[in-house]
Order: sequence, then structure tokens, then C-alpha cells
Amino acid sequence: MSEQNVSFQELVRECTLIGTSAAVLGWDQETYMPEDASGFRAEQLSWLSAQAHQRATSQQWADALEAAMQVCDEKDLAERANLSEMKRRYELATKLPVELVARESKVSSHAKRAWMEARKENNFAKFLPHLTELVDIAREKAERWGYLNEPYDALLSCHERGATTAVLSGLFDTLRPELSGIARAAVERSRDRVQPLPAGPYPEAQQMILNEAIARDLGYSFAAGRIDTTTHPFCTTLGPRDVRLTTRYDEADFCSSLFGVLHEAGHGMYEQGLPGDRPGMAAGDAVSLGIHESQSRLWENHVGRAREFWKKWYPRAVELFPQLRQVALDDFMSHVHQANFSLIRVESDEATYDLHIMLRFLLERKIFRKELALVDLPAAWNELFVELFGMTPPDDAQGCLQDIHWSMGAFGYFPTYTLGNLHASQLIHAARQVEVIRQGIDTAQYGPLLAWLRENIHRHGALHEPSDLIFGATGSAPDAKYHLEHLRKRYVDA
Amino acid sequence: MSEQNVSFQELVRECTLIGTSAAVLGWDQETYMPEDASGFRAEQLSWLSAQAHQRATSQQWADALEAAMQVCDEKDLAERANLSEMKRRYELATKLPVELVARESKVSSHAKRAWMEARKENNFAKFLPHLTELVDIAREKAERWGYLNEPYDALLSCHERGATTAVLSGLFDTLRPELSGIARAAVERSRDRVQPLPAGPYPEAQQMILNEAIARDLGYSFAAGRIDTTTHPFCTTLGPRDVRLTTRYDEADFCSSLFGVLHEAGHGMYEQGLPGDRPGMAAGDAVSLGIHESQSRLWENHVGRAREFWKKWYPRAVELFPQLRQVALDDFMSHVHQANFSLIRVESDEATYDLHIMLRFLLERKIFRKELALVDLPAAWNELFVELFGMTPPDDAQGCLQDIHWSMGAFGYFPTYTLGNLHASQLIHAARQVEVIRQGIDTAQYGPLLAWLRENIHRHGALHEPSDLIFGATGSAPDAKYHLEHLRKRYVDA
Repeated sequence: MSEQNVSFQELVRECTLIGTSAAVLGWDQETYMPEDASGFRAEQLSWLSAQAHQRATSQQWADALEAAMQVCDEKDLAERANLSEMKRRYELATKLPVELVARESKVSSHAKRAWMEARKENNFAKFLPHLTELVDIAREKAERWGYLNEPYDALLSCHERGATTAVLSGLFDTLRPELSGIARAAVERSRDRVQPLPAGPYPEAQQMILNEAIARDLGYSFAAGRIDTTTHPFCTTLGPRDVRLTTRYDEADFCSSLFGVLHEAGHGMYEQGLPGDRPGMAAGDAVSLGIHESQSRLWENHVGRAREFWKKWYPRAVELFPQLRQVALDDFMSHVHQANFSLIRVESDEATYDLHIMLRFLLERKIFRKELALVDLPAAWNELFVELFGMTPPDDAQGCLQDIHWSMGAFGYFPTYTLGNLHASQLIHAARQVEVIRQGIDTAQYGPLLAWLRENIHRHGALHEPSDLIFGATGSAPDAKYHLEHLRKRYVDA
Repeated sequence: MSEQNVSFQELVRECTLIGTSAAVLGWDQETYMPEDASGFRAEQLSWLSAQAHQRATSQQWADALEAAMQVCDEKDLAERANLSEMKRRYELATKLPVELVARESKVSSHAKRAWMEARKENNFAKFLPHLTELVDIAREKAERWGYLNEPYDALLSCHERGATTAVLSGLFDTLRPELSGIARAAVERSRDRVQPLPAGPYPEAQQMILNEAIARDLGYSFAAGRIDTTTHPFCTTLGPRDVRLTTRYDEADFCSSLFGVLHEAGHGMYEQGLPGDRPGMAAGDAVSLGIHESQSRLWENHVGRAREFWKKWYPRAVELFPQLRQVALDDFMSHVHQANFSLIRVESDEATYDLHIMLRFLLERKIFRKELALVDLPAAWNELFVELFGMTPPDDAQGCLQDIHWSMGAFGYFPTYTLGNLHASQLIHAARQVEVIRQGIDTAQYGPLLAWLRENIHRHGALHEPSDLIFGATGSAPDAKYHLEHLRKRYVDA
């Protein structure tokens, strides 16, 4: 592309073609690529990502964006919001000096290996020097990006636009006094009620039939998507009309792949609902991790774990898995609402999940406020774990070394998981105020609910701050009370 | 990449990363892409192919190639051959003015649509003006590229390096007096002997098991490849260790997918056997369509239609398809060697295939020698068809309008199919002179045969002319007598 007279739109279009081409290669790498191809595939991906990065951080990009802002009609508020978000992204990408980005990439690549070994050997000391360096780099990034009150703000808002330590602290403060109690009640109730489901096999092919039928019925479009099998489930966007999901199958437990599909289909329906005519622009892009997660959690937990949903779908499951004939719907629902205290975040359930996130938020906040030295992290983790869960991790491998995130330098990322849960509860609460949506939910017809999400969330792309989106959709600022109410209703009062 | 100080090797490497990335997107498009994605996918592919084309036809490319030739050691004959072939390719790509390339692309896009309609309506007149324009363009290309004796030479050699009208005429002259007779004998014998196989279904999943077991046993590597399902079978290279095949399934006839896989696996083993350390260089690339086809035909016909092969594999087929229990191996072999006169090339069999190609070669030669006006093409086709097949096409749709090639401006392409057959027969004849290879073939152990092909064909990439490769491997220049001998032995004398 020549250096002159290229419009911002053309630049973004080109960059999107490159980025989505890389997404195709990335999808193939996880699904069907033969094993010997991995080395060359890394080179292909690296070339593509360098091409996209060069363009999106170039002076030409900045100039074209500036020119587009100059000619943008004062009254075209949507386009002004679009361009202003594109500018924020450009600055996030370019405010960091190349040396810092390179250093982070190098350090985190070593740190990831060290973390793997440290976790395997249950040896925090091995990870500590790497973690120290990554926290230093994160601090420098925060300084470069700038922040209103404290460095952690900058780290939060690079994952969740507009998020601040103050606002998140408020949300977790609301959760904290009640969440442990709800979780404890849920776990106790589970202990009394839950019988294991009949033994498998629940054949993979039958699971696929059920998963696809449900995803289709919820509104995930297979004309613009598909479901494949991978080690770790994910959702990826290969183009405005090409949003693919993956899941994994456990023949002993059909719920594992199914709730995976419901979760990823939530992400997928959000991506499929973004304005497809503006790929690569903020107007056509997801706004934040928290809003993304609100969509996946809404379909996974609020829809997929509801009794009305299973009133419709349980008979089909019984057809596909005849061993379920001996299990009554109510007993199956107890299974779906099973709660356990787990040491490990990724193995935890709806009732206990946010406790894991709260722990990480409180520790990260302390770290970046310099109230906690990294050498004391294991002790601080264990102390807080006892406080929140009433039990002590037996070792650091099952404690502060369990997650990959910190080894990648991803600080301020965890809170977006709980934001997703809070937003999901608040959104479904608001949606249920609409008669036709409530009736739909009560009869497991989700067309009206999806239409409401399309209207209130999806179609806006990244034109508004996440909290403004929630306000616009629900009539109030993000508030943790809806989530507590939901958990209490499902896990305590039911 | 900066404009200066980039080595030819780096340029080629980059261009290969782009080209193979496009191959991944192309493969996905044919296999798994959801339908709504096609518009955006075309844009992604078009961006990638423009990037590769720009680089491979740039002055920077020419300069870097020139510089590489300057510093290349006089005695490094392999590298000199590599660079000289790269130069030939650069010239093929750049000797045509941009306007001509654009015109061809536009004309052939219209011509393809017109051809589809003309074939459907059996209306040659509708296609004639487009064909006329495409032949004119091909003539201009020939003039631009240059040739030794006649314009058709240039068209032949752009598909098959070093091919000339004179040499091909010699090969077809050898075939002509005998081929019709062999075909006629084969068809008659078939009529007497062949009973239809038991009715299906031959379940797709069982076909896959058989196809994969056989492809693996022949030496196609699944660590560097895989088999998927598409409407039209193909083989595509996504990287030096990523060569994928496709086939299609007909549950009434398991031979259809199987021989498809054998054919594509032949292409695939060639690609997997090319020097993987030089992707994008002539040294690491296939040399020609004719040599490529020789590999596919060798494994499909010489290996896959041999009695020794089925002595090993028929019992497995019977296990997978129990209805075959009632069919003796000899009766099955008659089925595998079934011959029929078909009006349509793509439906024809080993015994009659080359007659279809001969017809096209003779007509193309006349066209480019201006001995045949295009308006007279249908009559000339039919006249020659009677001569070769002893029957008259009932209409042009089943006559000169049947193939897509001419509508794409691909003149001089058809002969590479017969070159593939001739080379395959000559190669297997030479290979069988080696004791361990003959023993292997006789017991359906193909390791020694594949090793011989790797040594004599694959590892050479595109460093030598196809005819030199054949000479080097077999000790004689390409000769049609081996193919006649093979056909006679299998279809007349057996």
C-alpha cells in the first residue's frame, strides 16, 4: 500500500484482513494442524502479526486517524466515539517504547517456563525473580500509560476500558461480606443433595448432537460459525461472519462439553452480533473482556443452569443418553447446581468462583500499592484463602502458583472474570423486566433475550465505556447486588 | 521489510510465508469454513496474494536475485541451478505487461461464466467470442515469453518446463497407432468380465479407516499431513511439513474415495519429499505439473491397481465391508481394471484416459498453428473423437465444451496429464529393475519404491528439467513405449 492518500478506513481494513488471516492460522493450529507443522506455523503467524503491528503503530496510521478526526462531522457522535476509541487504542499500543515491549516479551517467555517448573516442583522461589521483573515492567507500563489515582488503575483499564481500582474495590466490598456465606451454604446443600450421575460413556458423537442443537436453538449461527474439538475450549473470530467455537469432550460427563459450548456460544453470539460492516473499527469490535465475559456467563449460568432450560432440554438429553432415564429432573438440577470448595480456580463452580477472583484482586491491589512484598505472596495468599474459603492450600502449586496469568505479565486481568459475572446478573435482571423476555425464559425460548442483548450490548461495539453500556441497558451503574441476589436465590433459598 | 540489504533468501522466505498462509486460508475455505464467511475470505486471500505477487515481481526481487547470482560459487552447480530456475520464474512472471495480465484475468472471469452457460445450454456460439479472445491473449503471452519453434511451445513450457511441441508430438505419435487398439480391447474384455460390486452402503467412516491405513502404509506421513473431505479432491501444501489431502465419499462405491486418496497421496508424498529446508526456492519446489502427475498416477495406477497390492489389502477391505465376502479377489480385480469408453474425460479410466488428452493436444496444436479456426472447433472435436473412440459425441456439452481449462485460458495444460502417465510407467519400469524394489512391490511393501522416488525425483526439487530428471532416474529420455507396454500387459495380455 502506498504511503500517501490512504484513508484511515483503508488502513484499518487492511490491518483487519491481516489480523483475521492470522486468526485462521491460529484456529487451524489448535484444531487440525499436523504436529510437524508447528515450527513453520509459528513463523507464518509471526510474520502476520508483525505486519499488523507495524501498521497499527505507524505514523501513517496516526496521521490518517488524525485526518479522519478532522473531517468527522461534529454531530456524528457515533463516528466521533469510534475514532476516539481508535485513538485510545493507538496510544495504548504506542505509548510503550519498543525496548519495553521487547523486554516484556523476552522476560515473560522465560517467566512462563520458570513458572511451569516452579509449579511442578512446588518451588515459589524459582518463580520469584521472574515475577519481580514482570511486576517492575508492569509498573513501568502503568507509568507510561498514565493513571488517575494509582498505578493499578492503568493495568485494570488496559483490559477493561474505564475500570478503576476504586470502582472495583467498591464492587468487591459489596460482595465480600456475603459471598463466603453463600458459597458455604451452597457447598453444604450440595453435600446433602447431590448424587453422582450414572456412569458413562456419554458418547462424544451424542454429546455433539446435543451441544449443536442447543447452541443453534439459543441463536448461535452455524452459517457464520462452527464447533470443533480442542484441548482448551475457546471462541475465535476469523472474520465478521466467521466466529468459531471449540470444546472438549469427557465421555464420563456430558455436562463438561455442554457448559463449555454454552459459555463459548455466549462469546460467539456477542461476536456474531457486532456490526459486521465495520470490522477492525471500534464500532465493530468487542468493548472489553468484562462485557465479553458477561455474555458467556449469561448463557452458561443464567440460561444454561436454569430449571426452565432443562425442562425443555432434559428429555432430549435422556433420549441421547438413556442411562439418564433413572435420574429425575430435580436430581439432575442438583447436579447442575453442585457446589464445592476447590483449591483451584479453573475447577471451581458458579457459587464459589468469585471468591477465587476476589483473592487475586485483593493481592494484586496490595502488590501495586506496595503493601505486599512479592516474597511474602505465598503467605498472603494462604492467609486470605483461609479467610475466604475456610481452608489452607497444602502447597504453593495449589496456591499462588496455580494460574498462568502472572507468568505472562497479565496483571489486572482476573477482575474481568468477576465483572463478567456481575454484569451478567445485572443484565438478566433488567431483561427479565420485559414481559416477552421473561415469558421466553420461562419457556426456554431465548429469541427475545438475544434480541435484547443485540440491541443493548452487541450492536454498540466499543463505542461506549463498559459501565455506560451497563447503565444504558439496565438503568443503573454496575452493582454487585444483582449477582448476590442471583446466587442467594439459586444456592441458598431454592 | 526495509528496501535495502535484504538477501534474496530472506525475500523468498517472506514470500513463502505469505503464499503458504494463503494456502491455509484456501484449504479452510474448501473444508471447514462456514458459508457466510466466503465474501470476507475472498478479500483476505486477495490481500495475501497481492502481497506475494508484489514481492515476487519487484525490482528489489530482481536485484537481490542478481546479487545472489553474482556471489554464487561457480562450482556450486546446485545453487546455480536453483538461482537460474528462480530467474526463469521471475521472467515468466514479469515478461507480461501488467495490462495483459489484468486483461486476461478479466476476460477469463467473463469466459468462465459464459462457458458454464454455454455448456448448460449446449451452445458453443455463446462461448466462441470469449474463447477467441483468450486464444488471442495466449498468443500474445507466447510472443512476450518467446519460443524456439512455434508459439504453442511457450504455452506448453509455462506448465511443463522444457516441454516443446516437437517432443510432445513425438510422444503422442508413438502412442497413437496403438492406444485406440488397447483401449478397445480393454473395453471389450471389461464387458465380458466385470460384474458390478455388491450394493452399498460402504459406510464413509469405514472408507476413512481403509484409506488412512493404506495412505500411511504407502509412506504418506500423517505427522505432516491429514485427509479431509471436499467436493473435489486435491492436495495442498501449507508449509514444508504440512501437506494435506482431500477426497470425497460415495457410499455406493468405496473405490471412488480410495483411488482419490491414492492419487492425492502420490502428490502428497512428492511434496513431503521435497527438500524442506528451502521452501519457496526452486531447490525445494516441485518441478512441473507432469512430474507431479507422474507421482500421483504411479501410486494410483501402478501401485493401487496392481493385483499384489490387493492381495494384501483386499482382506482388510472385506473386514470393513462384509458384503465383499461374496466377491473373489479376481472378480474384484476385474472391477478395478474396468474400462469403458466415456464421452467425458474426468469419468474415464486408465485404459482410455490418454485418448482424451491426445484429442486435446492435437486440437490445441492446430489452433496455435492456425490450422484450425475456432468456429470449426466443435466439428474438428467430433471428427477426431470418432477417429479415436469410434463414437460421436451427441452434443458439444459432452464434446468440446466439457472441460473448464480453456475457459480459464489454460492452453498447453492438458498434455501434462499424459506426460504424468508416461513418466509414471517409465519410472516404475526402471524402479522394478532394482531387486529389492521389485520384491517389495511383489509383496506390497513400498518402502524401497518410495525411497527410490525420493532419491531420484523428490530430493531434486526443481533443479533439473523434467526430461533430465526422467533420464537421470531411468537411463533414457521420456519414451511412450513403457506406458504402452504397461497398458498392454494389464488390459490386453492379462
